Amino acid sequence: MSPEPSALFLGVDGGGTRCRARLADAQGRPLGEGVSGPANARRGAGAAISACVEAARAALANAGLDQDAFGRVHAGLGLAGVCQSAGREAALAEPHPFASRALTTDFAIACLGAHGGGDGGVVIVGTGSVAYARTGDHEIRIGGWGFEASDDGGGAPLGREALRHALRAADGLEPFGPLARDTLEAVGGDPEAAVAWVGAAGPAEFGTLAPKVVAHADADPAAAALLDEAAARVSALALRLAGWGAERVALAGGLAGVYAPRLSRDAQAVLATPLGDPLDGAVALALRSARP
Amino acid sequence: MSPEPSALFLGVDGGGTRCRARLADAQGRPLGEGVSGPANARRGAGAAISACVEAARAALANAGLDQDAFGRVHAGLGLAGVCQSAGREAALAEPHPFASRALTTDFAIACLGAHGGGDGGVVIVGTGSVAYARTGDHEIRIGGWGFEASDDGGGAPLGREALRHALRAADGLEPFGPLARDTLEAVGGDPEAAVAWVGAAGPAEFGTLAPKVVAHADADPAAAALLDEAAARVSALALRLAGWGAERVALAGGLAGVYAPRLSRDAQAVLATPLGDPLDGAVALALRSARP
Repeated sequence: MSPEPSALFLGVDGGGTRCRARLADAQGRPLGEGVSGPANARRGAGAAISACVEAARAALANAGLDQDAFGRVHAGLGLAGVCQSAGREAALAEPHPFASRALTTDFAIACLGAHGGGDGGVVIVGTGSVAYARTGDHEIRIGGWGFEASDDGGGAPLGREALRHALRAADGLEPFGPLARDTLEAVGGDPEAAVAWVGAAGPAEFGTLAPKVVAHADADPAAAALLDEAAARVSALALRLAGWGAERVALAGGLAGVYAPRLSRDAQAVLATPLGDPLDGAVALALRSARP
Repeated sequence: MSPEPSALFLGVDGGGTRCRARLADAQGRPLGEGVSGPANARRGAGAAISACVEAARAALANAGLDQDAFGRVHAGLGLAGVCQSAGREAALAEPHPFASRALTTDFAIACLGAHGGGDGGVVIVGTGSVAYARTGDHEIRIGGWGFEASDDGGGAPLGREALRHALRAADGLEPFGPLARDTLEAVGGDPEAAVAWVGAAGPAEFGTLAPKVVAHADADPAAAALLDEAAARVSALALRLAGWGAERVALAGGLAGVYAPRLSRDAQAVLATPLGDPLDGAVALALRSARP
């Protein structure tokens, strides 16, 4: 299909906490942006697509366009939770108001964004983590199997390690330094309070402890050790993508800047600066999918 | 109080999965045993005390005694979940049919049992873990703050490490050996199935993966490394108790035999063979508490 001259291109970055949309013209020039709520297909494909449409509506309004314009919009959607086939199929089955829509994962658009729409790999380290690379028609996805038993280098596992250290320190098994003090304070002040805190905590809550590791890395050897261990895991993910064949590998996500200087020499060598963000990648997906 | 000559002494070991009781005479000679359901005060003090009474009734029946004998029974109860003051107070507030009852934690009776009712320390490694020691009127409790951020050496954290290894191995980040193969098989065969398995798994389920680490420790270096790491944590717990002042430190729980030969040389040096089990400790508590 070849889009009409007045076609509009919409990139959507749908994550577990919010959904961002950017509208662009046929040359990829931004016209407007919009934001809405969570768009994780694993928690309901209907709600995820609705969040995309709502963010799109906000982006159209921001560009001075009304809802009639939906029929001219070619959308590129990158959604959390569509890496598993059930989530993908459910999202594809949802009705939508767009002229066309391409659907992929949140990490695939991060990869497209990091490499200007071209080939490459990306290690995303946010609350969770995942590594992904694409070369031509081949792709690979590594890690990102969740907080409990995967997500190497993610903020939630890093926060949990901070709490493990704090509890050991409170028990006299490890030195009680600034990281232990701050972390224990954040979960109620003592181990009994920590047990109650953990009982109500999910990945997002454990993730709130991660910045304490970063903040104390210069002064507290325990914090530096946790960060180095996590950075070694992130290095392994980057090298795995390079070994698979990704020529450029970028770091993305909230902890990218924290890990970048701590990666191994080998991993530093394969690292490339991201050319753009996930929303850029989603717009690139929209442009690419609407053109034959 | 000095018990009447016909007094009976009952030890109860109340855990998260079942409650065991042993009836003894004034010389500590066993008269009968009984079993009932879970007795974790954190999940309801009333249900925990009811489980104790039910196990006691079974022990009386096993000894050929009827319920009239309850009035002669001095009980020593060691219950999970009474280490926190709320659980302890709730359990003490429950009505009971015994002539008297002393209440302590499940780990305190394990310690009494391991040292013939005398002073010492114990590191208990089951699905979870905890370290405890007593010397005269002083006691210390180390670790055991739960699966998510504590329980060093426990079967549940060990099983989770096995799964982390299996997922990394499936992604080509670590060698895919027998431990990875068996573990992945147990959680559904691939990472996507593992995500679903983890979503429905608690400590008990993660604990079912621990025996695979033990089984492959001789043939798979990854399994040996996980076991050695856990054993080092257990060594640290034992040495912490010794450093506090415990002269005898015993290992107890389902994984005791697994870790014993893998402890550090220092930890081996403080290790003592348990003289009895937690039920012996509960009977010792009953005898000690009923005598002035």
